[in-house]
Amino acid sequence: MQKPAHCFIGCDSDYADSRIVVFGAPFDGTTSYRPGARFAPAAIRNESYGIETFSPYQEKDLQDIKVFDAGDLELPIGDTSATLDAIERHTAKILSDGKLPLMLGGEHLVTLGAVRAAAKKHPNLRIIHFDAHCDLRDDYLGVKLSHAAVCRRCHEIIGDNRIFQFGIRSGDRSEFTWAKGRVSMCRFNFNGLQQAVSLVDRNPVWLTVDLDVLDPSCFPGTGTPEAGGVSFSELLAALRLCAPLDIVGIDFTELSPPWDQSGASTALACKILRETLLMVK
Amino acid sequence: MQKPAHCFIGCDSDYADSRIVVFGAPFDGTTSYRPGARFAPAAIRNESYGIETFSPYQEKDLQDIKVFDAGDLELPIGDTSATLDAIERHTAKILSDGKLPLMLGGEHLVTLGAVRAAAKKHPNLRIIHFDAHCDLRDDYLGVKLSHAAVCRRCHEIIGDNRIFQFGIRSGDRSEFTWAKGRVSMCRFNFNGLQQAVSLVDRNPVWLTVDLDVLDPSCFPGTGTPEAGGVSFSELLAALRLCAPLDIVGIDFTELSPPWDQSGASTALACKILRETLLMVK
Amino acid sequence: MQKPAHCFIGCDSDYADSRIVVFGAPFDGTTSYRPGARFAPAAIRNESYGIETFSPYQEKDLQDIKVFDAGDLELPIGDTSATLDAIERHTAKILSDGKLPLMLGGEHLVTLGAVRAAAKKHPNLRIIHFDAHCDLRDDYLGVKLSHAAVCRRCHEIIGDNRIFQFGIRSGDRSEFTWAKGRVSMCRFNFNGLQQAVSLVDRNPVWLTVDLDVLDPSCFPGTGTPEAGGVSFSELLAALRLCAPLDIVGIDFTELSPPWDQSGASTALACKILRETLLMVK
Amino acid sequence: MQKPAHCFIGCDSDYADSRIVVFGAPFDGTTSYRPGARFAPAAIRNESYGIETFSPYQEKDLQDIKVFDAGDLELPIGDTSATLDAIERHTAKILSDGKLPLMLGGEHLVTLGAVRAAAKKHPNLRIIHFDAHCDLRDDYLGVKLSHAAVCRRCHEIIGDNRIFQFGIRSGDRSEFTWAKGRVSMCRFNFNGLQQAVSLVDRNPVWLTVDLDVLDPSCFPGTGTPEAGGVSFSELLAALRLCAPLDIVGIDFTELSPPWDQSGASTALACKILRETLLMVK
Amino acid sequence: MQKPAHCFIGCDSDYADSRIVVFGAPFDGTTSYRPGARFAPAAIRNESYGIETFSPYQEKDLQDIKVFDAGDLELPIGDTSATLDAIERHTAKILSDGKLPLMLGGEHLVTLGAVRAAAKKHPNLRIIHFDAHCDLRDDYLGVKLSHAAVCRRCHEIIGDNRIFQFGIRSGDRSEFTWAKGRVSMCRFNFNGLQQAVSLVDRNPVWLTVDLDVLDPSCFPGTGTPEAGGVSFSELLAALRLCAPLDIVGIDFTELSPPWDQSGASTALACKILRETLLMVK
Amino acid sequence: MQKPAHCFIGCDSDYADSRIVVFGAPFDGTTSYRPGARFAPAAIRNESYGIETFSPYQEKDLQDIKVFDAGDLELPIGDTSATLDAIERHTAKILSDGKLPLMLGGEHLVTLGAVRAAAKKHPNLRIIHFDAHCDLRDDYLGVKLSHAAVCRRCHEIIGDNRIFQFGIRSGDRSEFTWAKGRVSMCRFNFNGLQQAVSLVDRNPVWLTVDLDVLDPSCFPGTGTPEAGGVSFSELLAALRLCAPLDIVGIDFTELSPPWDQSGASTALACKILRETLLMVK
Repeated sequence: MQKPAHCFIGCDSDYADSRIVVFGAPFDGTTSYRPGARFAPAAIRNESYGIETFSPYQEKDLQDIKVFDAGDLELPIGDTSATLDAIERHTAKILSDGKLPLMLGGEHLVTLGAVRAAAKKHPNLRIIHFDAHCDLRDDYLGVKLSHAAVCRRCHEIIGDNRIFQFGIRSGDRSEFTWAKGRVSMCRFNFNGLQQAVSLVDRNPVWLTVDLDVLDPSCFPGTGTPEAGGVSFSELLAALRLCAPLDIVGIDFTELSPPWDQSGASTALACKILRETLLMVK
Repeated sequence: MQKPAHCFIGCDSDYADSRIVVFGAPFDGTTSYRPGARFAPAAIRNESYGIETFSPYQEKDLQDIKVFDAGDLELPIGDTSATLDAIERHTAKILSDGKLPLMLGGEHLVTLGAVRAAAKKHPNLRIIHFDAHCDLRDDYLGVKLSHAAVCRRCHEIIGDNRIFQFGIRSGDRSEFTWAKGRVSMCRFNFNGLQQAVSLVDRNPVWLTVDLDVLDPSCFPGTGTPEAGGVSFSELLAALRLCAPLDIVGIDFTELSPPWDQSGASTALACKILRETLLMVK
Repeated sequence: MQKPAHCFIGCDSDYADSRIVVFGAPFDGTTSYRPGARFAPAAIRNESYGIETFSPYQEKDLQDIKVFDAGDLELPIGDTSATLDAIERHTAKILSDGKLPLMLGGEHLVTLGAVRAAAKKHPNLRIIHFDAHCDLRDDYLGVKLSHAAVCRRCHEIIGDNRIFQFGIRSGDRSEFTWAKGRVSMCRFNFNGLQQAVSLVDRNPVWLTVDLDVLDPSCFPGTGTPEAGGVSFSELLAALRLCAPLDIVGIDFTELSPPWDQSGASTALACKILRETLLMVK
Repeated sequence: MQKPAHCFIGCDSDYADSRIVVFGAPFDGTTSYRPGARFAPAAIRNESYGIETFSPYQEKDLQDIKVFDAGDLELPIGDTSATLDAIERHTAKILSDGKLPLMLGGEHLVTLGAVRAAAKKHPNLRIIHFDAHCDLRDDYLGVKLSHAAVCRRCHEIIGDNRIFQFGIRSGDRSEFTWAKGRVSMCRFNFNGLQQAVSLVDRNPVWLTVDLDVLDPSCFPGTGTPEAGGVSFSELLAALRLCAPLDIVGIDFTELSPPWDQSGASTALACKILRETLLMVK
Repeated sequence: MQKPAHCFIGCDSDYADSRIVVFGAPFDGTTSYRPGARFAPAAIRNESYGIETFSPYQEKDLQDIKVFDAGDLELPIGDTSATLDAIERHTAKILSDGKLPLMLGGEHLVTLGAVRAAAKKHPNLRIIHFDAHCDLRDDYLGVKLSHAAVCRRCHEIIGDNRIFQFGIRSGDRSEFTWAKGRVSMCRFNFNGLQQAVSLVDRNPVWLTVDLDVLDPSCFPGTGTPEAGGVSFSELLAALRLCAPLDIVGIDFTELSPPWDQSGASTALACKILRETLLMVK
Repeated sequence: MQKPAHCFIGCDSDYADSRIVVFGAPFDGTTSYRPGARFAPAAIRNESYGIETFSPYQEKDLQDIKVFDAGDLELPIGDTSATLDAIERHTAKILSDGKLPLMLGGEHLVTLGAVRAAAKKHPNLRIIHFDAHCDLRDDYLGVKLSHAAVCRRCHEIIGDNRIFQFGIRSGDRSEFTWAKGRVSMCRFNFNGLQQAVSLVDRNPVWLTVDLDVLDPSCFPGTGTPEAGGVSFSELLAALRLCAPLDIVGIDFTELSPPWDQSGASTALACKILRETLLMVK
């Protein structure tokens, strides 16, 4: 008998054969409000067997592509800096093997570790960022490595006019002020995404999706639910707009399963993950 | 003192006087993912007292019509085949008394028992089917009598081009392939329902509503929540489109109350049931 | 060291300096279906720290205005009449100090206490009422002071054609019949709100928002969830339409936190409250 | 077809034949902390089908005795006084027919209505009272008809040295002081119950069981869980000690199903109810 | 990179090297009351990382023994008979390889499949059975393959005086009557277990533990919580008493994780499983 | 009008007058399993109004003593080291004012900050430690400042034979081995506490209570529920044994309210806190 693998549905190819490598970064140590995002990768794997491998949206099937699910990183809980280092190393390894990393958070700060690796490999990196929150603080209660500052830290790495934000509907005033001229921000929705795609052009892109960009009606299972978000269909359409780009890495963060007892949030995340896997080049 | 009856609000007429007979089929034995649909009929009755008998949508009142609520069938749990037989017998009895059966599942497989009875009485039977899932597998893990195969089993009874599906957004590839030329399938929404109504024309219709056709935002309380579904208003409008048809039986399935602690899913089901009762001829 | 205050985020000004006074009326004694609205004011305060003081919708910040949060009234539980008296006295005091009372229910009956006070000060008072339910019964099971009769009681105070209802989608037939010619009722949505605003003109207005006017998809945390409601954006737009009026008092009622384990309903209420505080003159 | 009855398992005898009449008093209008006891009678009926009619503790079966379940009283929610009147009338009717009323609360105040009826018929009435709380306040926030004052109100009816309390572990200081010389109080446990049974002797007894006398470990589903309570076995033994008395009425109160998602509290209440029905003379 | 295994903590040895083989039988198709036991094996694995591999009770560590976790059987949901066949085949394979099967249910009926295999290999098989319920019905609503009849079915295989039941506190009268002279039954507790161990002597034993033998205070997460059960310490002591026997197979059934949101029931099951693995010869 | 304070029931004295200062340390950043302890101090305050100020166990009342509730520390989430510094400074301030700090965690690591302050002031400090877990690791996944290492860190400060542990029932083997000769450890219960009290004699003591020392039956609301714990009564008795000592500081940690929907765990913590406040010299 063989040991049973534990992977996202249809992602049971070998590492060597795979174009995409899924891995979990179960960290929520800087979450300021309601923790639980650490449980997301395991929940997504467990619940993925409630969906099918076939997408009626794209007429494609996970069985036709090669994806490796590497499981979860074992992270040094309580040490934010070492956690980001571990994520950076893992992402760099996948990138250096010519594969596409797809990271499942955890909270949004995990993006920083991955973006560090991607920016080292791709100096022209752009970031497309879907989120309810700016995440542009300089620090949060004096802490620089905070989910609320993740986009600010990324900006320090890749510089002005390379981050494109969509769906933003929360932040303090200083974040909105600071953003002007530094990051491209579209409030509330995906208007302007087509234009951003044109601007990004052939540059490499990291796509970071804080799932709280979704409206809490369809995605209550997150640490900081923000009314007035986008629908599942709108998010799907936005991902489709981005698909032709040269995407070099992706993350989905801030699913927090304990806050949605119905499981609908996790099921939605599974579906978005399937569609994304089938969508990227 | 009299024994207290336990019925859906406003459905306390006697059997003999009633045009419609509501009954529960509390079975979820083939549910492959998250069980709980067995609790739906009792929950719907209990929670129905949170709504009114009057519909401001139709300006009609349950007090003006005659409905008998027969309670729940006592089903042989663990024996799928015997369960379907019991449902068939009960449906046949209601049909032979010239009444309209309205069955509350339970999982979707219960429809098979009822459709068997309806097809015996009405050889020209059509099925209008609202669902997130095709339910067109030949078998599920070798099991023919499975919720995932219910529509395939119905097709074996009534044949090609007599099943009209709407809202479908999940299935494996083989189901979508098989469907072509055999059942009429509208993905994601109710587009084409008007045309289907024309095609059905004066033939007798069984209307089967798997409530997971609704978006999980308004209906999280179901075993397999599928993002991207229809809204309450869209479902209501679709039912209204069907109302002029010669409907000979109806079922609502797959409400699973334990997965929606808020009770909003059950409350929605109560309202859909009220509107349907007031709508059918 | 100072005692820690417990107030809604950004509402920590002194009473004397404040234009608006927030207070809680944690009463749900006549709730006929599912109680829990008594917990709303405390939950709103606790959860308010999950949102920001800045509104990207209005480009305004709570830090720029003066609001006093008076905490919760201590109400004589079990004595409906004395409870309403306490609310009336408290509201009258705030009004007599030239401030705007903003009451957080509790169930909808609490509005009656506040409206009594407002109508005494403002004989020309109008009421704009957002709700899923008419609340126009003469009594509920013989009880006159019932949440289901609150609007009827208010009508007895201010008279015909001074109450404007929106979003109504539930009630018994007699309520809808009675309403004709007495109150202005818009079913299901906010159509006609602009016209009502014109009719109200410069008269003083009490704005009463039963939060179950919202669709349960975004607001499941309420005692009687009614499918088919308005969205967060629609409610926000409706409030914006009312903002130029001479609003003399506001209440938000029927959030019932225990029924929404995700906390999204409470978070939405916090956001609506912030937007309202920033909106009123 | 017959309308389905809704009764506690095995309690489907006719009124005329029955020695015991079960009824629900779904009232929690004076609950000061966490409401929900109103749902208890319906939950107890629904969940009773999870237990058996046979007691292995007593080697008796509900099928061998005659019990009528009258369903729930329809109470005027929001009007405490009228609610108690309705309970009193109902109890008096059952008593005058020579039957034993067994009331399912609801909050503990419902006992007052029933005791009024019992004391009118039985001037020598004693009360045996199991509870975590004294319930001996003169008033609660000025309200005389409060759950927190129910035992004080009963004392006003039946007088000194006729109330025997057990399991008490909460109250304010004044209640404990007042109790001395007026009611017999055993703190924390059932020590002294045998002696109380001797003192009661052949006098008629109302047995009132606030189920929060149980430890929250086995009974978390109550409005005010108080650590340090008695176990299921201890409660069962205490009931057995009382069984030989001339019990003229019984109530079980303060089960609040929404606070125990596991259902274990309701299941325990069902079992205690079965054992009690099989125990009384 | 290697595919991540999904096993109970410390049970990552290879099959060939292992003395014990853990596997899941995620079936709850005949559950008559509240389903959910199908989720138990996955939950036990997921949550096992909340405990340690070391037992301070026994001063032993899972790292010192060899256990293979084979994952879950893929069972034909909806077909009870085929499900039991699959379990029997899997158990027979493990037995024929000279290993000890330790099955994680699922509902209690899964024991039947395993016992069939064990009885074929060990004609002198005895069963030690810990449970709240007799499970001795001849059928349940006409169904022979029912969780409520599992012990009766086992008796048909191994005959009189070879089943030893402990902790029993629920059943219908006929079960208790039938049991006399056929199975050894100890009600409520483990009294007499030492004597049973002596009687079993050197005969091979299947140990079947329906975890609802535990009191719902420490184990609410089960389909049919029965007050009055044993404590964790008592169960541990009982297992220790059995450990010296010639145990040829073990199962733990009826954990139903969805009914215990706290996770304490699953955590307890993990601990019992660890202690059992460290205990058996 | 005054701003409403937010304090534990009966703890509304001024700082200057108070002998005891309660404060919250809402930190759970190193929690390795299930976070949520950060919500404990707020929940304890909110729920404290469900208990009384009077203790029938001690015949004392919170109204007779002086306690200041300082609210919660605002901690730099994500920066463990800075968090401990903030706790140390706050504790040192209280100690230097001659008052007794009573800290409400948060996870158990918060104790380290407080103990640092206490050990600086009291070089002879002893620690009495109630817990299910040793917390004696040298590090956890390489992290030294971890809840799983808190007692090891404390040992580095105060040295051998000055820590007395009780109720321990979980840890890895190396922790138990390391403990020998360094800390006094009593497994499973409070046996030997009387002897430890004698050994401590007149030396100053920090009392640290990880509430998961309690059995999950009465305290499921914790991150890592460990079956086989002590009861409420046993904990109360243990606290009473310690009360005569020269206690210079106390903490209660690891209540995690989100995992106990019933609220019973929080209610128990409130009661333990009241009893402790009334107990210390």
